[in-house]
Amino acid sequence: MILAKTAAAGDRGLLPEVLAFSSSMEQDRALVREDLIGSLAHLTMLSRTRIVAASDAATIRAGLVDLWTRQAAGSWHPDGEEDVHMAVEAALTQSLGDVAGRLHTARSRNDQVALDLRLHVREQTALGLESLASLLAQLTAMAREGMDVILPAYTHRQRAMPVSLGYVLAGWGAMFARDVDALAFVLQQVDSMPLGVGAIAGTSLPTDREITRGLLGFSRLSANGLDTVGDRDFALDQSYATARLVLHASRVSTDLIDFATGEFGFVTLDGQIACGSSMMPQKKNPDVFELLRGKSGAAVGNLMTLLTLVKGLPGGYNRDLQEDRGPLLSSGPLARNVLDMLTLALGRVTFNREKCWAAIAGDYTQATDLAEALVIAGHPFRSAYQAVGSLVRKCQERSLPLAQVTLELAQSVDARFTPEVLLAADPKGSVARKESAGGTGPKAVAAQLTALEGHTERARALARSVPRLAGLFDTLKEASL
Amino acid sequence: MILAKTAAAGDRGLLPEVLAFSSSMEQDRALVREDLIGSLAHLTMLSRTRIVAASDAATIRAGLVDLWTRQAAGSWHPDGEEDVHMAVEAALTQSLGDVAGRLHTARSRNDQVALDLRLHVREQTALGLESLASLLAQLTAMAREGMDVILPAYTHRQRAMPVSLGYVLAGWGAMFARDVDALAFVLQQVDSMPLGVGAIAGTSLPTDREITRGLLGFSRLSANGLDTVGDRDFALDQSYATARLVLHASRVSTDLIDFATGEFGFVTLDGQIACGSSMMPQKKNPDVFELLRGKSGAAVGNLMTLLTLVKGLPGGYNRDLQEDRGPLLSSGPLARNVLDMLTLALGRVTFNREKCWAAIAGDYTQATDLAEALVIAGHPFRSAYQAVGSLVRKCQERSLPLAQVTLELAQSVDARFTPEVLLAADPKGSVARKESAGGTGPKAVAAQLTALEGHTERARALARSVPRLAGLFDTLKEASL
Amino acid sequence: MILAKTAAAGDRGLLPEVLAFSSSMEQDRALVREDLIGSLAHLTMLSRTRIVAASDAATIRAGLVDLWTRQAAGSWHPDGEEDVHMAVEAALTQSLGDVAGRLHTARSRNDQVALDLRLHVREQTALGLESLASLLAQLTAMAREGMDVILPAYTHRQRAMPVSLGYVLAGWGAMFARDVDALAFVLQQVDSMPLGVGAIAGTSLPTDREITRGLLGFSRLSANGLDTVGDRDFALDQSYATARLVLHASRVSTDLIDFATGEFGFVTLDGQIACGSSMMPQKKNPDVFELLRGKSGAAVGNLMTLLTLVKGLPGGYNRDLQEDRGPLLSSGPLARNVLDMLTLALGRVTFNREKCWAAIAGDYTQATDLAEALVIAGHPFRSAYQAVGSLVRKCQERSLPLAQVTLELAQSVDARFTPEVLLAADPKGSVARKESAGGTGPKAVAAQLTALEGHTERARALARSVPRLAGLFDTLKEASL
Amino acid sequence: MILAKTAAAGDRGLLPEVLAFSSSMEQDRALVREDLIGSLAHLTMLSRTRIVAASDAATIRAGLVDLWTRQAAGSWHPDGEEDVHMAVEAALTQSLGDVAGRLHTARSRNDQVALDLRLHVREQTALGLESLASLLAQLTAMAREGMDVILPAYTHRQRAMPVSLGYVLAGWGAMFARDVDALAFVLQQVDSMPLGVGAIAGTSLPTDREITRGLLGFSRLSANGLDTVGDRDFALDQSYATARLVLHASRVSTDLIDFATGEFGFVTLDGQIACGSSMMPQKKNPDVFELLRGKSGAAVGNLMTLLTLVKGLPGGYNRDLQEDRGPLLSSGPLARNVLDMLTLALGRVTFNREKCWAAIAGDYTQATDLAEALVIAGHPFRSAYQAVGSLVRKCQERSLPLAQVTLELAQSVDARFTPEVLLAADPKGSVARKESAGGTGPKAVAAQLTALEGHTERARALARSVPRLAGLFDTLKEASL
Repeated sequence: MILAKTAAAGDRGLLPEVLAFSSSMEQDRALVREDLIGSLAHLTMLSRTRIVAASDAATIRAGLVDLWTRQAAGSWHPDGEEDVHMAVEAALTQSLGDVAGRLHTARSRNDQVALDLRLHVREQTALGLESLASLLAQLTAMAREGMDVILPAYTHRQRAMPVSLGYVLAGWGAMFARDVDALAFVLQQVDSMPLGVGAIAGTSLPTDREITRGLLGFSRLSANGLDTVGDRDFALDQSYATARLVLHASRVSTDLIDFATGEFGFVTLDGQIACGSSMMPQKKNPDVFELLRGKSGAAVGNLMTLLTLVKGLPGGYNRDLQEDRGPLLSSGPLARNVLDMLTLALGRVTFNREKCWAAIAGDYTQATDLAEALVIAGHPFRSAYQAVGSLVRKCQERSLPLAQVTLELAQSVDARFTPEVLLAADPKGSVARKESAGGTGPKAVAAQLTALEGHTERARALARSVPRLAGLFDTLKEASL
Repeated sequence: MILAKTAAAGDRGLLPEVLAFSSSMEQDRALVREDLIGSLAHLTMLSRTRIVAASDAATIRAGLVDLWTRQAAGSWHPDGEEDVHMAVEAALTQSLGDVAGRLHTARSRNDQVALDLRLHVREQTALGLESLASLLAQLTAMAREGMDVILPAYTHRQRAMPVSLGYVLAGWGAMFARDVDALAFVLQQVDSMPLGVGAIAGTSLPTDREITRGLLGFSRLSANGLDTVGDRDFALDQSYATARLVLHASRVSTDLIDFATGEFGFVTLDGQIACGSSMMPQKKNPDVFELLRGKSGAAVGNLMTLLTLVKGLPGGYNRDLQEDRGPLLSSGPLARNVLDMLTLALGRVTFNREKCWAAIAGDYTQATDLAEALVIAGHPFRSAYQAVGSLVRKCQERSLPLAQVTLELAQSVDARFTPEVLLAADPKGSVARKESAGGTGPKAVAAQLTALEGHTERARALARSVPRLAGLFDTLKEASL
Repeated sequence: MILAKTAAAGDRGLLPEVLAFSSSMEQDRALVREDLIGSLAHLTMLSRTRIVAASDAATIRAGLVDLWTRQAAGSWHPDGEEDVHMAVEAALTQSLGDVAGRLHTARSRNDQVALDLRLHVREQTALGLESLASLLAQLTAMAREGMDVILPAYTHRQRAMPVSLGYVLAGWGAMFARDVDALAFVLQQVDSMPLGVGAIAGTSLPTDREITRGLLGFSRLSANGLDTVGDRDFALDQSYATARLVLHASRVSTDLIDFATGEFGFVTLDGQIACGSSMMPQKKNPDVFELLRGKSGAAVGNLMTLLTLVKGLPGGYNRDLQEDRGPLLSSGPLARNVLDMLTLALGRVTFNREKCWAAIAGDYTQATDLAEALVIAGHPFRSAYQAVGSLVRKCQERSLPLAQVTLELAQSVDARFTPEVLLAADPKGSVARKESAGGTGPKAVAAQLTALEGHTERARALARSVPRLAGLFDTLKEASL
Repeated sequence: MILAKTAAAGDRGLLPEVLAFSSSMEQDRALVREDLIGSLAHLTMLSRTRIVAASDAATIRAGLVDLWTRQAAGSWHPDGEEDVHMAVEAALTQSLGDVAGRLHTARSRNDQVALDLRLHVREQTALGLESLASLLAQLTAMAREGMDVILPAYTHRQRAMPVSLGYVLAGWGAMFARDVDALAFVLQQVDSMPLGVGAIAGTSLPTDREITRGLLGFSRLSANGLDTVGDRDFALDQSYATARLVLHASRVSTDLIDFATGEFGFVTLDGQIACGSSMMPQKKNPDVFELLRGKSGAAVGNLMTLLTLVKGLPGGYNRDLQEDRGPLLSSGPLARNVLDMLTLALGRVTFNREKCWAAIAGDYTQATDLAEALVIAGHPFRSAYQAVGSLVRKCQERSLPLAQVTLELAQSVDARFTPEVLLAADPKGSVARKESAGGTGPKAVAAQLTALEGHTERARALARSVPRLAGLFDTLKEASL
């Protein structure tokens, strides 16, 4: 096996240590389906352009279909070669003999690996969009149920204003909705078919890259071979989108970890997701959210790996690029893992309505509402603001929550506090009245949730629009030659 | 001045060291135009919704217009305050008195800074697209002139195949064309109007964010206030796009630095861009390309700064976010600087036709062509490949470049080398024949250059589509109140 | 001025845009003292080795001393040249004429900048050690006062065990004590004198680098010129040490921000450091700690800038290295700013003894103590652990804090709970008894504080051991020639 | 198995997905030896302090020794548990019954994992030092053989001065010698024994951490439990040292890749390390150096992962820290892999003496020597510099290499060019004369190589000083209880 490979590549004399150091075989196993799909499409093109005779093509296709079936069944594990491409070629040669050699016509490992990697990123991004849609749906559903749970929104980690839980969750949803955009950008960037540019400069054979492109469901051809074989921008884009997404999860996780403390007490974690302690059974450690937050390390590290990798590289293909494998292959599972686990865990978090309310009832978070009520009554904002400040200070001296302020006390501070204005000191009213677009008022939140449903559906539609490997195989195994 | 600020913010007692540590005033000076534009639009909305009387609005507008004029003339430098927002408010109060206070109605510094930053990133991205268009145009023009310069394309930094200079430059163009996509993504992400969500939860005043949005030329409103005030994804996107772009420049720079060595000798740098030495006048150091390559450090550093910054942040506004300023404000100039300097420097690089050709004429880079000619003659690729290998080895033993191989010698190696097949050993023909899409053949390159012109125009059109600060000012200073 | 420079460097024809792009003059202003000190030492060596006549050396020294005096007085600002080295040479030539040219003998800008940067990093590191010593002293002093404040230690952000505030602060001290090690490592790495290797290969002139080394107070000479001019490891080390240190500050900041929430309520921030709000006067926003946490972005970004910069650089000097300036010059102030502001802010944080205690009194954090008491009584740990678990569960059902458990209740769960064992349920005893090395017991903490004092003194001694620029000037201006 | 674990940890109800997500079992397999060693030392301490009876301790020790033997023989693979600690405990319980439970006395997984990780980093760093010593020895040996090979040193990738190959290799050695310092720093930082601080606050049991420390060969105890369980600085240090080291390798790789081009032609790669091509047998692709350069991606990515991970973490143990595993476990093999492969590959690189010389003979790289000869003859440097510049320009016009300049021509430029001065135009003399410390003169290089031998021995001595796992096992299995 090893000999077969090194003979083809001319590396017969390579030291075993060097071969082990330079082989990507172990990681490439994740790419075997992509490699077979790419070979099937390439073969079909070679046959349709008469570069390879239809009968030879049919023979080779049967061999490729057999390999697909065997890898799916777990009865064939590509091995013993430097990379997945040579492993497929070796297996094919073993079963078919010399005719297998015609498959490599007008193709180089440089464009072949570019195709495998793009097919992989495309598939993973589609799966990521499905997971993202589920998360968005979960947040929307929880938000609908949380419309009448009132809790503080925080700035500087200090209680700032009363909001509904629906609003908090809609905010998380709005954040993750931007990840639909980022994954859509990855899909757009990866959607360029590299095969057929050969090692670097194209070919003199009468190939037709449009055929291959159509068979593989790409929107466009890569523009220039020199650029194509040295380009890993799509992998950078994937790892950037993943990092941004996982960082979003890290922020939600921080909130939930804090909300789960004894001090906040806003949420209870179901025993199905919380790691407990035999000795301290009251303890429900939020390990799942800590791990989600910690995953940001790997996500950012992956991006940094790729940025470092391409820095200052000469044009064209350089073997350095093989080091793309680690980040490229781990980014997809990382993103999905984070999204799926967050979706699952959120569904097992219970907000404690009373504790949330207590944080509002005993505080002064509706102060801004009083100032705005004075503005509505015709007073300038800055002076309204100062009047409310004085009132709050007075309440504090008496340990009186703002919701319990009396007209008498208010007017002793500033005569402009009328009974009508004082209505604004009701925290529930504070939530109800903020109906400006993007606000916490119920109608405003309802509109946000409708928009979230749109993003959910958009993510699903994008995912559906991606040709999947399994479907491509079904088509290619029977495509006309 | 300082007192004015601290009074409004309630920070009268802050230690001077803490104030100095926490102030963003110095960096914020880059945002004064953005802040005034945002205030003009907000004021117009407050007037149209009758939250502020039209007469007051007119007074305030005159004050804002005056500040714009003064900052443009260099006669007013915002200072003495914690940030640009307070500096504008203080200047306005000084000239107008209490009525200035009405401007801050239904607005918080949290949404205000989000707007300023978005306006800034939008403007910088438009400028970046203009610079990118110039670079693409420069590459296209140079490529048209380089169609008949032949040089090796490299893989593994080893000569691989003969290509035209036009092809090399088209390849660089294809790489930078993807940056049009990345900057378009930034524009899409930044195109969301944040103002009007207040500190975090919206407002109970009868504002109309759609008015503000329309006046500022954004496509949509930010969805949710909690998310809006804590979101810096658009800054991450900007710094990612910048890093990717600057890394592209680093790769081109490596190629040009190598091409400018005494060993390659492919290019000569004009004295207008090359740093020489009085003692060694032959030396033309490629400092400009070294610095362009080195700029990738700052570009990647900026991105990492922002990724680190947002990691694990609680939801809503946290003051940590102020540390976005360094990367956010430097990314735009960095990108444009790199693009403009690369455009300028490329125009002063001369390719040495003879040295480029010599690297081809004395080598074996057209070997693949011979193999493909055998395939066209009906032989299987793998055996064709081995025959050519034997021929090259024999040539090498005799120090005979492949272009000079005789029919006799070729047939002594393998009888399948016919005169027709041997035509493929001509390096110029090697370039001419590779007409597959994305190849180095002249028609293939011509198509690539046409596509590049499309990308250039796309970049220009995107840049034109962005409402600019100067234009917004002209409209807003006269908008109906 | 500009002409003078370009003539010397042979770059007369450089485009102004290229000159502006490639100049480091603006950043180099931070290096003018370093450059003068280096020149004074180099000059002294040239004179002592008779390469430059003593009379010429005296003239040049007078010129350098004059420049030092003028820059200190603010009456000379190096400008109009490509970099600080040329600016000094131009100013010297202007005042002294041709004799100034002898200063550049046996020196190149490549080794000169390496020296300036090392002198800068060395000085900044010494200053950083002073700031670090102050922080350690502050933590030790606060810890001594906090020995009898009891609060929970947290794991997973859940209350875990009762500890003293002294222990918490000793823990922060232990973390920052490691930064003394990291800064000591920077000092060790930077302590190598680069001047005298010339452009890259040394010199044929009879120089004596040992003289220069001794005058500048370095411990050793750089080993090899090729390595010396391309080496920025000391800058990497500085930015790494800074990043580690600032990340430590980010963790303390997170704790203090959480402790300052309404929910925890463990600390109150003095108005001198907390940013308030006119409307919500109860609000004391922990902006200073948020900004400290946010500084980690720049610190990590700086490190990544340098790592990216050196990746794949050819050996020897490459102009890319000039891009070291941003991180190198900002790391020192960043580290000191963070340390000084943290020291200052910590001194204005008050721990609320009652709220801290309440978090213990009402919880079960002393459960482990009960289990250990059972172990001391001879029972195996795992079964002790289960017995305590059952007891806690039973207490929880009755909403009974663990400190209030009765013997009767305990024995109803497990007969092994004797009165003696139950003594371990006292939270104060829990703290008092943990006298294992590194534990929260008072003697253990006292030992930790003694160790911290050792680290403080170590930091101060290291700082004192560094030759400072001002002192070097005093010596060099009068050194024998 | 799974049940056993979850029962002990109290997580019986955890969803399988959550368990899979949160388990570190797969990665922890690399830590099984460390975990057993740590347990053996802890057990010995528990026995000596009479916390566990000696007879029980002997039983447990036999069980641990058995597990060590079985894992060494490959007949036991820890599995089925959340992490390696629980897997060992479960296996021990299975073979010994309840007595196994005594092992966990006065220990928590928080301090246990800190110990395992430190033991691992310590061992890996020792192995890294051995590999580094081999690389330094290889470079020294090659340098000794390359003393009379002359080639250009480069600045700005332009030929700058003639140097010996010995000097180039000594320069690489000087760079890697700094990595001995960095690894020594890692050893110093990791050399702190964490076990015995329990979950976070120490223990009330009469443990003696000094016993454990001595048994495990650490120099000091970790200072404070709160800090100990949340501290991963030693992992950061390891990944930083690794990144710096691998970046050094990336720079050497760039040089060798360039030297191996057809254009430079300075080196030939042995077929044992170069990847060839059947079709272009002249091609010897430097894949091994490209991959070495590309490894910098993973090295920097690992560091960034850890920096991101710890940013803003609350004090004490947080589960996020488990995400340290990826970088921590891969850094050791990465460093050694790079060092070993570089050592191996360097030994199979042949420098082409003639091509190296030709690059000098036809150029002007000895121009600085001429200027220095004029200085030695008493002329000022700046005017000497200009005279040489004129001479070089005149030579260039006549296509005359500097080594072939005639006295007549020289004097026509400047009368100060005497026969004695012109001797300096000999390139070999240029190398020979640069005997300043750190220069390319033969004595100077000899001194550098002697110093390198010192660094090599220092690396070896450091590696030897580290207590290794195998040796610790031999001691601990028979230590007095």
